[in-house]
Amino acid sequence: MKMENPTPIQWQFSERAQQLQSSVIREILKVTVRPEVISFAGGLPSPATFPVERMRAAHDKVLSEQGRVALQYGTTDGYLPLREWIANSLSTDGARIHPEQVLMVSGSQQGLDLLAKVLIDEGSKVLVETPSYLGAIQAFSVYRPQFLSVPTDDHGLLPQEVAPLAKGARLLYALPNFQNPTGRTLSVERRLQLVEACASLGLPLIEDDPYGALSYRGEPLPKMLTMNPEGVIYMGSFSKVLTPGIRLGYVVAPVPLIRKLEQAKQAADLHTSQLTQMVVYEAIKDGFLNEHIPTIRKLYADQCQAMLAALQEYFPSSATWTRPEGGMFIWITLPKHIDAMQLLDEAIAQNVAFVPGAPFYANEIERNTLRLSFVTVPPEKIREGVQKLGALIANKL
Amino acid sequence: MKMENPTPIQWQFSERAQQLQSSVIREILKVTVRPEVISFAGGLPSPATFPVERMRAAHDKVLSEQGRVALQYGTTDGYLPLREWIANSLSTDGARIHPEQVLMVSGSQQGLDLLAKVLIDEGSKVLVETPSYLGAIQAFSVYRPQFLSVPTDDHGLLPQEVAPLAKGARLLYALPNFQNPTGRTLSVERRLQLVEACASLGLPLIEDDPYGALSYRGEPLPKMLTMNPEGVIYMGSFSKVLTPGIRLGYVVAPVPLIRKLEQAKQAADLHTSQLTQMVVYEAIKDGFLNEHIPTIRKLYADQCQAMLAALQEYFPSSATWTRPEGGMFIWITLPKHIDAMQLLDEAIAQNVAFVPGAPFYANEIERNTLRLSFVTVPPEKIREGVQKLGALIANKL
Repeated sequence: MKMENPTPIQWQFSERAQQLQSSVIREILKVTVRPEVISFAGGLPSPATFPVERMRAAHDKVLSEQGRVALQYGTTDGYLPLREWIANSLSTDGARIHPEQVLMVSGSQQGLDLLAKVLIDEGSKVLVETPSYLGAIQAFSVYRPQFLSVPTDDHGLLPQEVAPLAKGARLLYALPNFQNPTGRTLSVERRLQLVEACASLGLPLIEDDPYGALSYRGEPLPKMLTMNPEGVIYMGSFSKVLTPGIRLGYVVAPVPLIRKLEQAKQAADLHTSQLTQMVVYEAIKDGFLNEHIPTIRKLYADQCQAMLAALQEYFPSSATWTRPEGGMFIWITLPKHIDAMQLLDEAIAQNVAFVPGAPFYANEIERNTLRLSFVTVPPEKIREGVQKLGALIANKL
Repeated sequence: MKMENPTPIQWQFSERAQQLQSSVIREILKVTVRPEVISFAGGLPSPATFPVERMRAAHDKVLSEQGRVALQYGTTDGYLPLREWIANSLSTDGARIHPEQVLMVSGSQQGLDLLAKVLIDEGSKVLVETPSYLGAIQAFSVYRPQFLSVPTDDHGLLPQEVAPLAKGARLLYALPNFQNPTGRTLSVERRLQLVEACASLGLPLIEDDPYGALSYRGEPLPKMLTMNPEGVIYMGSFSKVLTPGIRLGYVVAPVPLIRKLEQAKQAADLHTSQLTQMVVYEAIKDGFLNEHIPTIRKLYADQCQAMLAALQEYFPSSATWTRPEGGMFIWITLPKHIDAMQLLDEAIAQNVAFVPGAPFYANEIERNTLRLSFVTVPPEKIREGVQKLGALIANKL
């Protein structure tokens, strides 16, 4: 039974949907799946680091012993033993974090969406770093805020620049550890200054921390959350320390905000996979991450070193770059007249890919910047790809 | 290192967040976890139907053979073999569905949120049934539409009532098979009338179908999707035919809308668990659901029968109820002067629970209604619970 010759619908999208766009990175990744391409474009962790057998064994155990619980609907806030584990892992002597301050989410990206949903009205001021994580810009943009970019230098965001921009602002979003895209680290002094500035302004401070555990020296800097648990919203993720494809992250915040986020999550997807939460708890509860994370750090530190050495050898002296102390990214600044988007076309023609810096700017774009990821490319390929890029840049000088 | 005496933040929530509330059902469920409570309140499928061993084996196989792919980031649209399977399963001779019309989502609730996000502006008219699924009302409410309730009778929504309400409306939301909350089925004739009415009005028609496979006679009615694939947005779920805790559903729609939903999903959570999608495909690709679903139908049909018999025996003749031909719910209409919310308090004091009808109404509330689920309660407990409820109601006559 079927209708005869129906008229196709003229879709009328909401105002927020009309400005939605696909992420530039996801578009680039479609081009770079060819095996001959040396891709520095991805933000993907190295699959060599995935503890596949441990995840298999954990699924086996949870489904064998608690299958009917793991496969049933769960609570919106999340699996309590895992929330307890997270609260303990974040607590310090001076700052206890409680499980009711933890909301499990389907990856950090969902945390960004929920925070924007409950904190941003159309036209609300939102402060971000210059440049900032494009996934956050994308998530916030749906709710149509007015972005204000806080100036930065090589040590990250400049705390004294916050107050002049903050009047009426709804939140400040910062990624203090090995930032995506720049690889920069916010110094301890600035963390405290930033926390104090936001507290005195009554401005919620989002501390997005997917890479914090990936410090090459193995010593993470103190979290802003522990400097002021009543004013900081902390976002964590299992994507970079365990595996990303399972989509599991968490938001830690004062209870009144967590309750509101929980209501928003209930409307958005009821809850995050109960099975996934129980399996991750099973996989990590005995201290596994303490052995596992150092192996990721070692791999990424070695490949970062290989890329820094190659940049030194093959890039012209008029280019500058960051020297990350952890994480997955190096940020390149080229001479002003070079447009990284144009450079990308030429690079792809030579089977090398990266992400131009433009989409990481919420306001004034610096087109002569680009982001390189070194974590999924072996050292000899890093050298080859950087050499090709260096030659393309040299041609433009 | 910690701030001295910070001032707690005065949270300023967005206008949409200020009206967010926790679902009444989730609040009731918190009360009814005590084992002595006979709960007809849940919308949970029976865990006795979960194919735990098959899910365990599928996880084992996928993680053993394709672990590094399953645990890596995936594409936003979803795992292609699963989307192909879904497209094939929905296709009829007259209406081919293509994989690019399918978007995988983290449970149907996320489909509702994404549809609302891209189709509803503040004040947009949205048509729903009287009563309608409260999870949909909750998801849509976030975007602050104006709800218009389409009148219904025992055979569901009245198609001729749509046109007078539809001017400028953004969508009509319907749940045609064994509706939540009423258990009603929309007749085939009305399906075609509704599809034609919406097509001639240019009104997108959402066909939410979580229970369609659970027809007690085993013969599902034709889907509105196949009557006009260019005008109907179909929502499916694995929650009621496989397991709900893994959070996996799908939206099927014309490609221009799917592309917009995909952008919204990218901003909302990047993608649904790659592992979950691969495992479900592994579990169902060989026709497993064809053997499995009849066992669920049998269980639910028997328990529905037990509840109908108990209602006949113990409820006063001034109460009426629906006689579902599938699904999980019976809808009770009491004499006008009885408020089901008040009745709930008395019932809980006697260790019986249900969901009052009020939250299922988007506009004028009929307080003398309530929803009973029979799927998680064994027949002897169904009798006991219905007997107690009947006595409480008789006391009010």
